[in-house]
Amino acid sequence: MNDAVSITRDLVRCPSVTPADAGALGVLENLLKTAGFDVHRVTFSEPGTADIDNLYARIGTSAPHITFAGHTDVVPPGDEAAWTLGAFSGEVRDGYLYGRGAVDMKGGIACSVAAVLQYLRDHGGKPQGSISFLITGDEEDVSINGTVKLLKWCAERGEKFDHCVLGEPSNVEVLGDMIKIGRRGSQSGTLVVEGVQGHVAYPHRASNPVPDISRLIVALSDEPLDHGSAQFQASNLEFTTVDVGNTASNVIPGQARAKFNIRYNDNHTQESLRQLVDARLERACGNRIRAHIDWQPSNSNVFVTQPGPFTDLAVAAIEEITGRKPELSTSGGTSDARFISSYCPVIEFGLVGQTMHQIDERTPVADLEKLTRIYRGVLERYFR
Amino acid sequence: MNDAVSITRDLVRCPSVTPADAGALGVLENLLKTAGFDVHRVTFSEPGTADIDNLYARIGTSAPHITFAGHTDVVPPGDEAAWTLGAFSGEVRDGYLYGRGAVDMKGGIACSVAAVLQYLRDHGGKPQGSISFLITGDEEDVSINGTVKLLKWCAERGEKFDHCVLGEPSNVEVLGDMIKIGRRGSQSGTLVVEGVQGHVAYPHRASNPVPDISRLIVALSDEPLDHGSAQFQASNLEFTTVDVGNTASNVIPGQARAKFNIRYNDNHTQESLRQLVDARLERACGNRIRAHIDWQPSNSNVFVTQPGPFTDLAVAAIEEITGRKPELSTSGGTSDARFISSYCPVIEFGLVGQTMHQIDERTPVADLEKLTRIYRGVLERYFR
Repeated sequence: MNDAVSITRDLVRCPSVTPADAGALGVLENLLKTAGFDVHRVTFSEPGTADIDNLYARIGTSAPHITFAGHTDVVPPGDEAAWTLGAFSGEVRDGYLYGRGAVDMKGGIACSVAAVLQYLRDHGGKPQGSISFLITGDEEDVSINGTVKLLKWCAERGEKFDHCVLGEPSNVEVLGDMIKIGRRGSQSGTLVVEGVQGHVAYPHRASNPVPDISRLIVALSDEPLDHGSAQFQASNLEFTTVDVGNTASNVIPGQARAKFNIRYNDNHTQESLRQLVDARLERACGNRIRAHIDWQPSNSNVFVTQPGPFTDLAVAAIEEITGRKPELSTSGGTSDARFISSYCPVIEFGLVGQTMHQIDERTPVADLEKLTRIYRGVLERYFR
Repeated sequence: MNDAVSITRDLVRCPSVTPADAGALGVLENLLKTAGFDVHRVTFSEPGTADIDNLYARIGTSAPHITFAGHTDVVPPGDEAAWTLGAFSGEVRDGYLYGRGAVDMKGGIACSVAAVLQYLRDHGGKPQGSISFLITGDEEDVSINGTVKLLKWCAERGEKFDHCVLGEPSNVEVLGDMIKIGRRGSQSGTLVVEGVQGHVAYPHRASNPVPDISRLIVALSDEPLDHGSAQFQASNLEFTTVDVGNTASNVIPGQARAKFNIRYNDNHTQESLRQLVDARLERACGNRIRAHIDWQPSNSNVFVTQPGPFTDLAVAAIEEITGRKPELSTSGGTSDARFISSYCPVIEFGLVGQTMHQIDERTPVADLEKLTRIYRGVLERYFR
């Protein structure tokens, strides 16, 4: 059976908790090969990490090229005895399909495969352009042998993507309420303030870094980084810890350290952001305080797919099926979209995220059918 | 031999590292008994601490009553091989008497005993009032079975002190440069700020205690507690540590803690000081920040012996022998004077502190002789 419910069930029945594949990619490989796709199974390795299976499948050779991205790995089921139906059963009860990954995101992958197969069947077996699937088994854990390497592998083969739909559960309450078109960047750093150690009874012979780091924390926390942009809320710097670790109550310590994390929008690049904060620190230090920031490496850059023809056709397809005009949002946590965005415009639209990562993760069967029709509508409009 | 150099040598040769007595109090007991003192050896105990020997000796029954206080215990010698002469040798070379305790404060005790014996010899064996010695073996370490309990024991026997000279090494550079007439109090506390834990990506759902504790640290550090008093420098509050201990870079923590120590002068009592700082904290918190201070128990209260006839006669005795007019100071660390001050006015005057607690602790023999003459001068003036 090639409908979304059957494919979701088949995928959920593979207990593919990262890094296990447990047959999940094989389910897709069979379906796509039968439909005429050129299918590649690619395994990536790295010392200290588990080998991971990935899949890249393409049909058509010309532009435009739309790729459906996703991951077949899932988070652990937790207490399996607590599930109403088995954690990997894929069974339907009272209109809901149950199982780990039903929502995040085997259901989303199943809908995209079902939609593509229908589209090809109704259009002579070939698109007027190219359709591909970019599926990893390494998204939920360290994400080292997954999408980053698969994209690089594709680029080295000369694959060019024009647009991407990532089927992550983007909707908050109900199918059709949200498309994610970007994400804030994330950048962490450590503020280090140097003082001069001494005895509390003789503060004039010491330089206490505790009030100094406090002044700097207040200064860096209080001045807004920006006031938001067209697609983003304001960037924000949040100190997460400050630690000295001095256990002697009669000693002024010699150093203090504080860590912070910034979530930043498209007013900044990683580089410009660091320069901005370094400059503010220098100003707050004046000639007196000796301090610097150790910036932590980060691959969570800001990205956004600006609203335009591609988002318009997705919105139209969603509105036609659900009657809802989805919000174009840049909120929430990270996903593989941050990596894909370096290669082509990417939007995220999938099922409703409410039960993801929980006991009794489940999706209405009706949502699987509607999401399949939405993806079908995207394809119709894309190749029109 | 009853001169200060001999008594110092005899005391230094007893390796009385706290809690050991090693015969030190016996040296004094013999000398004082021979001179007609009523001598008491008193041992104090407390679970979890070593038993400690102490000595109280008095001659005379009437007022005025002057007591010479001190401690025969010493800090450890450190690397004994590094000493020029033995750490407990008490030997004299090139005009200096060497050994642990030579300065802090067996030398001081020896001078007071030698001075008292001379005074009694020259005045028919009895003072026109009372002279006593209040000597503990528990000053350098935890100070639990020492002066505090000995003073209580004396009070229970009906002993009343009119004035006290504590022979701690009070001079900074040269004999005669400083009398200590008081000490600042010491009070520690922990500032606790309550926030609401959350995810750094959603700061509006959390309340970050890190910038808040930083604001409070700045507010409490920046506002002076006072501008000093007649005998004291300004009180000072010094934050010694701030700690959150949050290791998750994407989590806003729920609580932050900072510790501080206050050195305060006689503008405050322990109680009024706590009220002042609590009130400043409440003002700095406003209606928004939830914070409080956990005050640490402290027995280091501020005390001062106001300049007057007693300090005048000490200054006169010092000036006569050294040609120097000593500064009346309240600087420096704690001593048993803080406990004695609850019973009678106390001044500290002894040898020069430069080598105390160091390898090759030593005192000029000439200083032992001069300090004996100074104490003798104090006695002559006191009973005149």
